[in-house]
Amino acid sequence: MSTPTTPGPRPPRIDESVWHRLRELAVEAMGRAYVPYSHFPVGAAALVEDGRLVSGCNVENAGYGVTLCAECGLVSELVRTGGGRLVAFVCVDARGAACAPCGRCRQLLSEHAHPAMVLAMPSGRASIDQVLPDRFTEADLDAVLGDPAARPVPGPTGPTSPGADAS
Amino acid sequence: MSTPTTPGPRPPRIDESVWHRLRELAVEAMGRAYVPYSHFPVGAAALVEDGRLVSGCNVENAGYGVTLCAECGLVSELVRTGGGRLVAFVCVDARGAACAPCGRCRQLLSEHAHPAMVLAMPSGRASIDQVLPDRFTEADLDAVLGDPAARPVPGPTGPTSPGADAS
Amino acid sequence: MSTPTTPGPRPPRIDESVWHRLRELAVEAMGRAYVPYSHFPVGAAALVEDGRLVSGCNVENAGYGVTLCAECGLVSELVRTGGGRLVAFVCVDARGAACAPCGRCRQLLSEHAHPAMVLAMPSGRASIDQVLPDRFTEADLDAVLGDPAARPVPGPTGPTSPGADAS
Amino acid sequence: MSTPTTPGPRPPRIDESVWHRLRELAVEAMGRAYVPYSHFPVGAAALVEDGRLVSGCNVENAGYGVTLCAECGLVSELVRTGGGRLVAFVCVDARGAACAPCGRCRQLLSEHAHPAMVLAMPSGRASIDQVLPDRFTEADLDAVLGDPAARPVPGPTGPTSPGADAS
Repeated sequence: MSTPTTPGPRPPRIDESVWHRLRELAVEAMGRAYVPYSHFPVGAAALVEDGRLVSGCNVENAGYGVTLCAECGLVSELVRTGGGRLVAFVCVDARGAACAPCGRCRQLLSEHAHPAMVLAMPSGRASIDQVLPDRFTEADLDAVLGDPAARPVPGPTGPTSPGADAS
Repeated sequence: MSTPTTPGPRPPRIDESVWHRLRELAVEAMGRAYVPYSHFPVGAAALVEDGRLVSGCNVENAGYGVTLCAECGLVSELVRTGGGRLVAFVCVDARGAACAPCGRCRQLLSEHAHPAMVLAMPSGRASIDQVLPDRFTEADLDAVLGDPAARPVPGPTGPTSPGADAS
Repeated sequence: MSTPTTPGPRPPRIDESVWHRLRELAVEAMGRAYVPYSHFPVGAAALVEDGRLVSGCNVENAGYGVTLCAECGLVSELVRTGGGRLVAFVCVDARGAACAPCGRCRQLLSEHAHPAMVLAMPSGRASIDQVLPDRFTEADLDAVLGDPAARPVPGPTGPTSPGADAS
Repeated sequence: MSTPTTPGPRPPRIDESVWHRLRELAVEAMGRAYVPYSHFPVGAAALVEDGRLVSGCNVENAGYGVTLCAECGLVSELVRTGGGRLVAFVCVDARGAACAPCGRCRQLLSEHAHPAMVLAMPSGRASIDQVLPDRFTEADLDAVLGDPAARPVPGPTGPTSPGADAS
């Protein structure tokens, strides 16, 4: 299982060409959105500490509560492709204008954010701590439950032999 | 914005080699899961009507309620890469054994399911209608709200000119 | 913390007057729904094993993905008021007609369902195992992680002294 | 269907006795939490503009992603009991110490927040705009989709006659 790498002391330098590329990728992702209910397509793109780019678009559902925001896809791709820390993030609406992530998405990003992560918000660029101050993290769990390193981890066993087929 | 293609009369024939390949992909995805809280990694893989394979792993969060199941990643990738109907689906736990999708994930899959979609469940293969009988769909909305074709759709405008930059 | 009581061998007998009362309560709850985005109000009501009635309505959000279905409110009230097992359930749309719970809501109900729980579905009454066959439960976690009784439980400490004030 | 009342120019004055009462209610709610997976009970309580108090506790699920936070219950109760604007909010952990709402919960609260809503955060009291700056609201939808008053609303019909029974 992947674990976010320990964040280095500072994020890669993010120059304007990176911001431009992230916006282009977010706009491209937005064009793929599945939004038959809201008619409000959103695209998101981010730079990972190791230089990878990840992206996502929103995916709605007749059961509105199970709607996947663009950030759900982005974070899923991040972990699916190896994990790591997010350092720069752009989200766009149908006009290509910066779109504010909802609170749920800020929580999703927070779990994988480099401490110096920067988001392109409608009001300008801001850090993860600025867009979600006093954020709820694993440290809040540890403060009540104790050090996780001292809590026994039930170890999942490896994939079973070919005999135990999932299909 | 992508829209699922109109399902053809029947799904591609799914032979055993496809099920084998889906299980391998699901196991590989499971190995990427981010599960510091449950220690319960899950991987999922599916075949799309056009022959594409999509996959995902679960991504947990200190705020347990925003956890992304493996199917969230799978469905996000489906739409991000062009949409289409799902025809075969496998989900595995840490042992590589078939894992039952939770109800939320069945709802996610339902929205993009080919009418003849088959899922590898712990108790054997089953159709989408068997794993989520009497499922809630857009038709339930339409029954109350009227035909969506008769409901005006607020048209999102295209990406704005280069001047309106999201970053 | 409340824990669902061990289910007895069979649920209370549910006569037609109870179903009538549940439907009335669900319709009343539906009238309270906050649905500025879908215009699709839903109400739900259920009978608990100990005779209590609980209910809920849907609550939407500009961030569609954080929408609370009527069942979210119902299950929250169930636990907030003492927990217990659900034995009968009704969900209605704006017409007062039976509405199928989405998959997410079946998962929510499943966790608190009496083994013989009955739901009023659009196609008629059905058990929880019929509406969510092969459902994902704590037993699936235990099968991989081992017996939870053998897993140490980090005990939350009690409320702190008056000095540590949350406000 | 209820709609939040138009917020008045300023919230009721919140004196220390109200904060004390909210904390007591949140601690009481916390004691009802259903947390067999995280062992991290949370309780939340809030004052509504009209003087009502609402509360909630977290409700977990074997499918971690459908976990209901304490704020889900609180907001559901708010709407179920008549709606209105939230003006003061307290959330506590197992120690009775102030607990930071996760991002999803800030989004839930935001939809029903009085513009001057105050939250008791671990770092002290803060406004809704401070804990979720540049928040995503209905105005973001309107900026792309146009004025909702100009968008036709499909009117749900009233409850059907007694003949159309949901049970």
